[in-house]
Amino acid sequence: HAQSNVQIYGLIDSAVVVESGGPKGRITKLESGVSNGSRLGFKGEEDLGGGTSAFFLLESGMLVDTGGMDQGGLLFGRQGYVGLRQKDIGALYMGRVYVPIYQTLTTIDPMANQYAGAAGQLMSGAKAGARQNNTVMFISEEMQGWTTQLAYGAGEVAGNAAASRQLGGSLTYSRGDFTARIGYNQTNNATATDSAHNTLMIAKYNFGPVIAGLGYAINHGIGSIDSRDSIAALTIPLGKHTLMATYIDKNDRATSHKYRAHQYAGAYSYALSKRTALYASFAYLSNTNFTTTRFGSGNREYDLGMRFSF
Amino acid sequence: HAQSNVQIYGLIDSAVVVESGGPKGRITKLESGVSNGSRLGFKGEEDLGGGTSAFFLLESGMLVDTGGMDQGGLLFGRQGYVGLRQKDIGALYMGRVYVPIYQTLTTIDPMANQYAGAAGQLMSGAKAGARQNNTVMFISEEMQGWTTQLAYGAGEVAGNAAASRQLGGSLTYSRGDFTARIGYNQTNNATATDSAHNTLMIAKYNFGPVIAGLGYAINHGIGSIDSRDSIAALTIPLGKHTLMATYIDKNDRATSHKYRAHQYAGAYSYALSKRTALYASFAYLSNTNFTTTRFGSGNREYDLGMRFSF
Amino acid sequence: HAQSNVQIYGLIDSAVVVESGGPKGRITKLESGVSNGSRLGFKGEEDLGGGTSAFFLLESGMLVDTGGMDQGGLLFGRQGYVGLRQKDIGALYMGRVYVPIYQTLTTIDPMANQYAGAAGQLMSGAKAGARQNNTVMFISEEMQGWTTQLAYGAGEVAGNAAASRQLGGSLTYSRGDFTARIGYNQTNNATATDSAHNTLMIAKYNFGPVIAGLGYAINHGIGSIDSRDSIAALTIPLGKHTLMATYIDKNDRATSHKYRAHQYAGAYSYALSKRTALYASFAYLSNTNFTTTRFGSGNREYDLGMRFSF
Repeated sequence: HAQSNVQIYGLIDSAVVVESGGPKGRITKLESGVSNGSRLGFKGEEDLGGGTSAFFLLESGMLVDTGGMDQGGLLFGRQGYVGLRQKDIGALYMGRVYVPIYQTLTTIDPMANQYAGAAGQLMSGAKAGARQNNTVMFISEEMQGWTTQLAYGAGEVAGNAAASRQLGGSLTYSRGDFTARIGYNQTNNATATDSAHNTLMIAKYNFGPVIAGLGYAINHGIGSIDSRDSIAALTIPLGKHTLMATYIDKNDRATSHKYRAHQYAGAYSYALSKRTALYASFAYLSNTNFTTTRFGSGNREYDLGMRFSF
Repeated sequence: HAQSNVQIYGLIDSAVVVESGGPKGRITKLESGVSNGSRLGFKGEEDLGGGTSAFFLLESGMLVDTGGMDQGGLLFGRQGYVGLRQKDIGALYMGRVYVPIYQTLTTIDPMANQYAGAAGQLMSGAKAGARQNNTVMFISEEMQGWTTQLAYGAGEVAGNAAASRQLGGSLTYSRGDFTARIGYNQTNNATATDSAHNTLMIAKYNFGPVIAGLGYAINHGIGSIDSRDSIAALTIPLGKHTLMATYIDKNDRATSHKYRAHQYAGAYSYALSKRTALYASFAYLSNTNFTTTRFGSGNREYDLGMRFSF
Repeated sequence: HAQSNVQIYGLIDSAVVVESGGPKGRITKLESGVSNGSRLGFKGEEDLGGGTSAFFLLESGMLVDTGGMDQGGLLFGRQGYVGLRQKDIGALYMGRVYVPIYQTLTTIDPMANQYAGAAGQLMSGAKAGARQNNTVMFISEEMQGWTTQLAYGAGEVAGNAAASRQLGGSLTYSRGDFTARIGYNQTNNATATDSAHNTLMIAKYNFGPVIAGLGYAINHGIGSIDSRDSIAALTIPLGKHTLMATYIDKNDRATSHKYRAHQYAGAYSYALSKRTALYASFAYLSNTNFTTTRFGSGNREYDLGMRFSF
């Protein structure tokens, strides 16, 4: 029986990761999902006629180095939704989805918040979290280059609809070689007496062999958290070879823990085929007050790995 | 490589749920599996010749709103079994299966123990639990309208085979427009010194545009638990539209917490296709001593959602 | 859409298991994975040209009797890896893989460390664990009858690369009806101040209707653990019928808990088809100081079950 209703897809990624500069010394690991999160997904779409279609997606994130579930132990922790799409208008999603400001971050970071230099290590846009639960999301069809995305994540607190609520959205303009996007997120605390709100603006341009981009984030967290992040990014695709580099500056202005940090990162990916790649990456983080790299502690990280997609 | 040995199927369901009447006030949520449990399943069957076949099924229940596993964190929490089927006799299942009395409940409840007015909220037949572990189950082939189902769930207690044991069965008669079924379940406590035993009798008739049914349950629980449940149910299928309504009365006769409760519930499902539907449902529960609705606290619930099957 | 990139496979196994001789008396259970672990797997391979291919595998172990995850609650607890294969050389795996000495044990045990008489109950080769995390493993192509396997499991302790590290390998010679294999494993403790090291040597020969084999293990554990294990094994494949028998002797020489134990076990498998089998097995363990059988306590076990593979 050939499966006609569901498509199975996935990606398995593993790398040898060396972290150094931490207080306890160098650590060597085999990690999962270094250049791209390891996953197994199931998806389907049904044409309902009149330009309408229904769809679903379930995407499991797993740790191939230990066999466990990723995203803190969730079966379908990467994404899961059911929805309806109307041609020329857009699509409505219900479930667990990517946060619009997080997708703005992965648009400017050539490493898509992966590899040694994952932008989310320093940039607070990612601190809104990659995904949000209990969410109704709308993504418009592209119109004259414009795309809109709106997400409402219910707080699910009795008697207080604003408590723990997460609201966000993004506006994208993309024409030819130019893309600009602004993302916003607001997450209320458990009593709706305070909220974190983040804004990230990015722009990138494809100059031919080089795609160059810039981003700037304004972050106001719960309490006195207050920071500004800047990112400059380069991608150089040369056939099977892809070179990526980022420079990130974080200016933390919170009275309690003022600091300045910056990160240099580079990555190289070599496509053995459309589906399989080898890669290497490194990152250096300047500030020892901020030494949590993506995969642990320390201020330097080196990765060497492979990924296979299907 | 086209998959020939295993069939993948599933259903993703999500709804906006509003509950009110609870002590903390109204709550609005995005929930998973409101009209039908969200699931992903794998199954297969092999013809062994001579009318015999072997089969298996693994069915995972997941919460599409949060990415987690349903059924309290089980990977294949909905169903899982391997078995043998003999033509003209029946099938033997080994694994985790639905409890016969629970399937009696879902036969009379037009909402199949789902939607806002899930019958199991009030009816104790469901209190036997929807599924039982460590079970050998036999379901006979239909013969002259009769079907028998027997289930033995091992208690797995050393030195006391009766401890924690779950026994159940059902007898169904179905001819033309008429269906009647009786289900029974007995679950022993951990020392086999007491047991809960539930009986549910139901009958329904298809009058043409309207399917009407009645059910009555006698429940004796562990200790002094003692109740009688009655259900009256209507289903009106009109092409793409399906209307469902139930009235349930619970008469709790236990000395410690005597009460009377009743529930009114209605649901409407609109088929966008054979696989996709939109739906709305509501339920009202009379008695504030018994205010646990399927999806939380309160005595009123309103749902608006969609499901997609594949 | 026919799936072309991923192959789904699996096996569901369940049996009625009776254990007796334990201090609390006889226990009857329905168990999962008695003759072969219940599993659902996803795998794929891509030809990259020049004799090179990339591959992945994700294998979930589940308990079909309860719906839970096996291997202590891991989603892909059986195996998970991504890797590269070079024709005439071998394959490199990254992820969670079988321990080489454990595969040596399953090579000599006709029951592959399953059924009532699973060799790992007594033999310490299995005490190295069946699988190891964070591992880079190489398995050579067979050359003149020889195959080499090397595994390095990173300890992932900062500043001490030897801490918690697991190293192992095996060397196999197989020609015609003869197979010999030696497996070795060394697992360091959390500070690399001590280590467990196990060696298992096996040989077997196919005499025609009977395959006979012998194995001997030398085990030095953390602290004073010190034991010798011997196994004699028979397999008699007769068309649809397979008979298996083992005798295992354990000589525990640790000062603190010196003892001698032996186990007799037999199993019978009847193939209903290539994919489906019924089976029965039993085991008797001599020594009441060592009464932990595969599925619980007691010194006798009887199994009757079926498995279905797909």
